[in-house]
Amino acid sequence: MRKIRLGVVGCGIAARELHLPALKNLSHLFEITAVTSRTKSHAEEFAKMVGNPVVFDRYEELLDSGLVDAVDLTLPVELNLSFIEKALQKGVHVICEKPISTDVETGKKVVELSKKSEKTVYIAENFRHVPAFWKAKELVESGSIGDPVFMSWQIWVGMDENNKYVHTDWRKNPKHIGGFLSDGGVHHVAAMRLIFGEIAWVSAIAKDISPLLGGMDFLSSIFEFESGVVGNYTVSYSLRGDDRFEIVGTKGRMEIFWDRIVLNGEEIEVPHQDSYQREFEDFYRVIMGEKRNDLGDPLEALKDLAFIEACVRSQGNRVSVSSLL
Amino acid sequence: MRKIRLGVVGCGIAARELHLPALKNLSHLFEITAVTSRTKSHAEEFAKMVGNPVVFDRYEELLDSGLVDAVDLTLPVELNLSFIEKALQKGVHVICEKPISTDVETGKKVVELSKKSEKTVYIAENFRHVPAFWKAKELVESGSIGDPVFMSWQIWVGMDENNKYVHTDWRKNPKHIGGFLSDGGVHHVAAMRLIFGEIAWVSAIAKDISPLLGGMDFLSSIFEFESGVVGNYTVSYSLRGDDRFEIVGTKGRMEIFWDRIVLNGEEIEVPHQDSYQREFEDFYRVIMGEKRNDLGDPLEALKDLAFIEACVRSQGNRVSVSSLL
Repeated sequence: MRKIRLGVVGCGIAARELHLPALKNLSHLFEITAVTSRTKSHAEEFAKMVGNPVVFDRYEELLDSGLVDAVDLTLPVELNLSFIEKALQKGVHVICEKPISTDVETGKKVVELSKKSEKTVYIAENFRHVPAFWKAKELVESGSIGDPVFMSWQIWVGMDENNKYVHTDWRKNPKHIGGFLSDGGVHHVAAMRLIFGEIAWVSAIAKDISPLLGGMDFLSSIFEFESGVVGNYTVSYSLRGDDRFEIVGTKGRMEIFWDRIVLNGEEIEVPHQDSYQREFEDFYRVIMGEKRNDLGDPLEALKDLAFIEACVRSQGNRVSVSSLL
Repeated sequence: MRKIRLGVVGCGIAARELHLPALKNLSHLFEITAVTSRTKSHAEEFAKMVGNPVVFDRYEELLDSGLVDAVDLTLPVELNLSFIEKALQKGVHVICEKPISTDVETGKKVVELSKKSEKTVYIAENFRHVPAFWKAKELVESGSIGDPVFMSWQIWVGMDENNKYVHTDWRKNPKHIGGFLSDGGVHHVAAMRLIFGEIAWVSAIAKDISPLLGGMDFLSSIFEFESGVVGNYTVSYSLRGDDRFEIVGTKGRMEIFWDRIVLNGEEIEVPHQDSYQREFEDFYRVIMGEKRNDLGDPLEALKDLAFIEACVRSQGNRVSVSSLL
């Protein structure tokens, strides 16, 4: 089995703590051959954790080195577009951490670049690889709760000054729309769209509650899927509460957890699988031409972001999500 | 202590099952001296349950009889305005079951009549007499959860063909806006406004899910109180689910139940008191001039209804609640 030679670009929290453990388990598929980071010492530390990839001072040198088939971009969001563009110009595949971009207008450019290139652009949205969400979709579609009518997701992230993400420079002064609302929010939208399909419109209120977190940190919304299912999505990145993801139908209800679903009072276990590992396996298969890029499709990531941008713009007014696309 | 001589007008479920038990416990304050109902046999049955009030064929005869100081109106909503008007013309106090009227425009006329009359018009909204809501208000205002940020109330009434309210003629073909959404909903709005004050705007979606229930039966909304607290209110009269009323603040959260509040994980008991009995006691004190009519004020009932009417009109758009008043 041919290994993909991977260049890791950006050596922050996501690269070290989310991608690297997955890639270590996938050493039969990927070999990290090159590394670069804005802060060279970070790249050198990362290189030591990996083995002996070449450390480059500049991204362009890495791309020109001939050492990489693909790059893994884990960067401040505002750099995604230009870094993706450069990789494609050099004929290098890309996997890039979500959100696709700072806003929908910029994200559209990523989608366009991707369409024009023969190389893969894969937006890494690990929530599209969480087994519990696929199980929920299957249960909804099999009629286990009758016709689904309503879903509600409340998420209380409760970040305080001890949280590592809070202190990232690009998160403290966010250039991406809504700050944490898009950074974290695209995950949630991906899961909801996975289960229920496209969202037709949303009405929402977004607020900046915590002075500690850069940008906005609270969002509450109602929306309607094209199927007619009604949704509520409320998230706070600073407040603490009781997370709850539930679906109510004409003949029952379910609650979704990370490792189980409670369906009409009955527990259904959903064995945990590392979603980052599944994501990189999927990326590998797409590059190898074994499947189409359905789960890493930039257009899917753009739709996730469009929902959040619609929420931020809404101020209680109804916004058609597709009108942003 | 002087007893109020009360005429009961309408002898349906509310009169028999909600008001009569309370009035029996308040026989030192009220004496039911007269009864009338569209269906005379209902009035006669009711009279037997009470003792020996005079049964009148027509409301006008009851008002003219000189036997009543006040009337208790438990009628199809569309009759409230004309029945209140007639009582005031005869110098008779009124207690009238919520909702105040079929819609806000009609409700305004009740408010106007009430303002012009020296007699009391008391809209019976028993949720304004539920001790748990007052306790929640006290706990929120005392800072027990820091600054309140968000409240969410999900209510799943789950009415099926065995439910007695479903088969009431005026509920099967509702003339009141939103059907069950206003009939039941004004209760919930009263509780939310009791705790948090006025609601500035709402965005909502209302649906008719169940063919069994007349009119609409599902509502989901986001809104903002004038204080800036954000709310979600979702109710279904046909679906079954897990009722939940929670408030999240900067320093904690609480869940509200009928007989207790769970504050930051700690149970606080709130002894049950019959809210109908408290309501009639309050009505008595208002008539006697011992207090002002703050809890039965038609304007308060109108504001409850205005929120629901705003929800029904919204279709996802932001509607200012006060713009309806």
